[in-house]
Amino acid sequence: MTDSQKIQALQDEANRLRVHCIRMTTKAGSGHPTTCLSAAEIVACLFFEVMRYDPKDPHGPMNDRFILSKGHAAPLLYAALADAGSFPAEHLMTLRTLESDLEGHPTPRFPWAYVGTGTLGQGLSFAAGMALCWKYLDEVDRKAYVLLGDGETAEGAVWESAALAAHYQLDNLVAVIDVNRLGQSQATMYGHDTDVYARKLEAFGWRTTVVDGHDCAALLNAFEAAQAPDGKPVAIVARTIKGKGVPLAEDKNGFHGKAFSQEEADRAIEDMAAPSEPPAFKIKMPAEAAPPQGASEAEVGAPSYAPGDMVATRQSYGSGLAKLGSADPSIVSLDGDVKNSTFSQVFAKAHPSRFFECFIAEQNMVGMAMGLATCGRVPFVSSFGAFLTRACDQIRMAGVSRANVKFCGSHAGVSIGEDGASQMALEDLSIFRAIPGSVVLYPCDAVSAERLVVEAARHSGVAYIRTSRPKTPVIYANEEPFPIGGLKVLRQSETDRICLAGAGVTVHESLKAYEMLKEEGINVRVIDLYSVKPLAERELVENASAAGSRILVAEDHYPEGGIGEAVAAALSGKDITVYQAAVTSVPGSDKGAVLMDAYGLSAERLAERIRKILAEED
Amino acid sequence: MTDSQKIQALQDEANRLRVHCIRMTTKAGSGHPTTCLSAAEIVACLFFEVMRYDPKDPHGPMNDRFILSKGHAAPLLYAALADAGSFPAEHLMTLRTLESDLEGHPTPRFPWAYVGTGTLGQGLSFAAGMALCWKYLDEVDRKAYVLLGDGETAEGAVWESAALAAHYQLDNLVAVIDVNRLGQSQATMYGHDTDVYARKLEAFGWRTTVVDGHDCAALLNAFEAAQAPDGKPVAIVARTIKGKGVPLAEDKNGFHGKAFSQEEADRAIEDMAAPSEPPAFKIKMPAEAAPPQGASEAEVGAPSYAPGDMVATRQSYGSGLAKLGSADPSIVSLDGDVKNSTFSQVFAKAHPSRFFECFIAEQNMVGMAMGLATCGRVPFVSSFGAFLTRACDQIRMAGVSRANVKFCGSHAGVSIGEDGASQMALEDLSIFRAIPGSVVLYPCDAVSAERLVVEAARHSGVAYIRTSRPKTPVIYANEEPFPIGGLKVLRQSETDRICLAGAGVTVHESLKAYEMLKEEGINVRVIDLYSVKPLAERELVENASAAGSRILVAEDHYPEGGIGEAVAAALSGKDITVYQAAVTSVPGSDKGAVLMDAYGLSAERLAERIRKILAEED
Repeated sequence: MTDSQKIQALQDEANRLRVHCIRMTTKAGSGHPTTCLSAAEIVACLFFEVMRYDPKDPHGPMNDRFILSKGHAAPLLYAALADAGSFPAEHLMTLRTLESDLEGHPTPRFPWAYVGTGTLGQGLSFAAGMALCWKYLDEVDRKAYVLLGDGETAEGAVWESAALAAHYQLDNLVAVIDVNRLGQSQATMYGHDTDVYARKLEAFGWRTTVVDGHDCAALLNAFEAAQAPDGKPVAIVARTIKGKGVPLAEDKNGFHGKAFSQEEADRAIEDMAAPSEPPAFKIKMPAEAAPPQGASEAEVGAPSYAPGDMVATRQSYGSGLAKLGSADPSIVSLDGDVKNSTFSQVFAKAHPSRFFECFIAEQNMVGMAMGLATCGRVPFVSSFGAFLTRACDQIRMAGVSRANVKFCGSHAGVSIGEDGASQMALEDLSIFRAIPGSVVLYPCDAVSAERLVVEAARHSGVAYIRTSRPKTPVIYANEEPFPIGGLKVLRQSETDRICLAGAGVTVHESLKAYEMLKEEGINVRVIDLYSVKPLAERELVENASAAGSRILVAEDHYPEGGIGEAVAAALSGKDITVYQAAVTSVPGSDKGAVLMDAYGLSAERLAERIRKILAEED
Repeated sequence: MTDSQKIQALQDEANRLRVHCIRMTTKAGSGHPTTCLSAAEIVACLFFEVMRYDPKDPHGPMNDRFILSKGHAAPLLYAALADAGSFPAEHLMTLRTLESDLEGHPTPRFPWAYVGTGTLGQGLSFAAGMALCWKYLDEVDRKAYVLLGDGETAEGAVWESAALAAHYQLDNLVAVIDVNRLGQSQATMYGHDTDVYARKLEAFGWRTTVVDGHDCAALLNAFEAAQAPDGKPVAIVARTIKGKGVPLAEDKNGFHGKAFSQEEADRAIEDMAAPSEPPAFKIKMPAEAAPPQGASEAEVGAPSYAPGDMVATRQSYGSGLAKLGSADPSIVSLDGDVKNSTFSQVFAKAHPSRFFECFIAEQNMVGMAMGLATCGRVPFVSSFGAFLTRACDQIRMAGVSRANVKFCGSHAGVSIGEDGASQMALEDLSIFRAIPGSVVLYPCDAVSAERLVVEAARHSGVAYIRTSRPKTPVIYANEEPFPIGGLKVLRQSETDRICLAGAGVTVHESLKAYEMLKEEGINVRVIDLYSVKPLAERELVENASAAGSRILVAEDHYPEGGIGEAVAAALSGKDITVYQAAVTSVPGSDKGAVLMDAYGLSAERLAERIRKILAEED
């Protein structure tokens, strides 16, 4: 093909993609065709001229990748891959049906999606994570292309990624902003003022070009200029028309989430006059990949603590992660400027090339971790548990994406002491429990913390490890195993009148309460619920049944969605009464021990509570 | 005072503030003195020369206000107000103790804080909400000053606010960025490059100045220039030294969250040579306020629907809110470019001056609502429930701040249909339940939706209303009351074998399941749990006990932290078995009815589940 033939072929292909998108959404009776129409030339240029990839292999080890941040344009992504030969075009007509991988917004059920998008403003982080992996870890020449809507650049997460991508000089990252002027309910803040997007990105350290997004020649020039790395990520700001090609909808409000009627669709498709077959493109195949490095089979060394050693679980998280990193080169660590508090700094020191400082920008940190995970890395993301709530939507999408990402939230609960409520994680268990397929782990000592780091890495999917600020004594032997879904019975007798279940810091308070009550002749069964999700249901029932059919669950967390509710739901119908000791109001500031007492979690208060429960039942 | 005397007095006062901060944190044995030291001149200039406020009245109706976004500098805020005469300086020494309002990070227990800060990057939104209120609603000349740390500008939320503040031309908003170069664990991304901050903010539409943050004359000039409104918010980028005035810590890593030892403190204070009394400042008093407008006592009209009318609860949320707005001028509405889906557009049309489009930037939207609430407005924030997770940390802080903010999350659960998992709220109940003092409301028809909007407004604190996408029939009479903490028994008999509790869309499936089972001779008691928090515990126990001591809770939500777990925890020990029907995996895309069936929530599946439960127990 000559250059002008190529341009014409791309323009034709853009119209074919438009036809596909209109047909698919009209068939489904719902969807967002007009946002597909604005980006048709951009996607045609990327998939049929710019990107190097094997259309038969979404996970090709040297493929360039495309991330659709504006996930509501999903039909456009599906259509491009059908025309590229990844699957038969007929399959497009299964859009938005339960048995199909072509969902309303992309998820990794469709393998070319890699991650779920559709909650806006996240795609740039995902792509930045991939670009980071390829530039710094794999050291290969692969590019990550990401398509953003203009409206979604109002999301702060976009600017977190923009800053970090420039900081890490990700010149293998190319963002295209589809400036079609219209959001869902009205015009965006900047309308068609493309310059303001360019100015903002330049101020954030990016190289930018403004183009007509319906001009394939201009787009190809811009992509061509993006190929030469110069230490800066590249943004192509493309002026487009929403609904382009369908005059009744072009540049008009009121057509955002609306499929065309059959009649409108037929008319539009006829006018489009798209070719009946995709033009004969030669998609650029990627370079051959180097043979994959053999995964290390090295064993992670056992913990080496002595009983009674005073070590905070956040410290042993750090040392455990560093040891795991020595055995397994796929482990990477990300932190948001609290590495000296979460102790991910131990990993950073041991494996500096696999540690990424993400600064105070938790949303992008989680998004980048999801991107890294799609490249075969096992990222451990750490911050204060309270600050992980900042990335709640990204964590939710890690669930939707079945992402293999591990989280560590430190500084759980009131036991952190004086810093006050804003710094205390008191809802983190609830957030991480509500991720389908997640595991939630809560060590109480250094041995269990190290062991659970390894368990989290072995679990496929989202895992959360909750660590505590204060130092606590080592209570387990170094060889003790901590399987996911287990529990530990720490104290028991034939005459236990109640079961007292703790996790993390409350295990130690429970052990002290046991001693107090024992002196009074009250025997209590003490349990460590280190596996919050999944719970060891059968063992819980057995132990609570054997201990007066009562269980008091003590947790440094709000009651809602926490361990107590999980236990109550699991034990319902088993003739066991579940009592909860949890933080029920917004805590104030004071030493951790003062707060544990004030909110009913100290040994004294737990013993008092048990005396009261037993007295009421007598 | 001459100008040069004034400058010297402010410089002296800055050192007095430093001394207070060192003393307070050393006494407490914890805290962040060095971040106070960098901002001492900024705060001295603001509180003793620039701001117009009554030091005896934190809620003075014409006061300028100061928001400490970098909340870890709390001692500096407390010290300034002590020296301004708001309270005795001795009180400063109660810092970080449970009985004191001087917490480790500010919360509104300290009335000059207005909102809680300390999870970084939120203060600009709070201040923007206040500025918005004063400029557009109150139309008064008040200014909002906000102090940000440099590190926290990595947070995307800051850029959401920056864009919105420029969009709304908030020239009564002045931000000072304390560029002290050092974060908690290392240098920030930009170190002392003050120009990059200025460039970024200018690109976002701000007026900016770069100054030496330890030079009171330069600071006063910058603040002076900020007084003349020109349609742009103002940023003062101040180059400072972390630990300024204490040589052992100046500009050094490793002193972030660390109080000085007594010896270090004594030495530093001696060297500081601060005056023993505050200089004789004359704090500028604000203008007198216009007499407050009498709150309208107008009654909100009753709903006017006919039984069987098909109306989505999201629609009646919109009409209910518009009616409430007519009766109560304090009601304002904010939406993130989904007003045509949440139906807040009905309010926007009826009360355009009290509606604020916040674009696709949910974090700033929630933060601005918190700011509006501190000015006596009652903000209703609406978005898809799924997208409110984006603001989870701000919602958490609304709880810490006891903010009087109302939230409406639309498009709950799989019943939304084809758009797929990213658009479905399936963890929103869990997030809002875990806010101390919150109420969580979930209407199933148009009447209850309108009524619950009014109930939410009457509740003091965080309220959440969950609405649904599909149209559902009106089942309640227009005069039916829906008190917070209640439930409705919709079907009952003397021979009920199980209680079936739904909320929202599952109420209607439950009613259909009732009919199916009735034909088979199985009587079921059907309950509408419209008040998810607080639950009507007593009535739940009575009804479940009278219906076979079994209850099946059906909810379009993940099981964790949802209604089923809440019920299980509330009913533990009451000899009632709680069963849950909920969404237990990541849903796919298809019509709402198909998904309700696939995830066990359709009438057919609920009836099937009940048959199975009863068969197992027989």
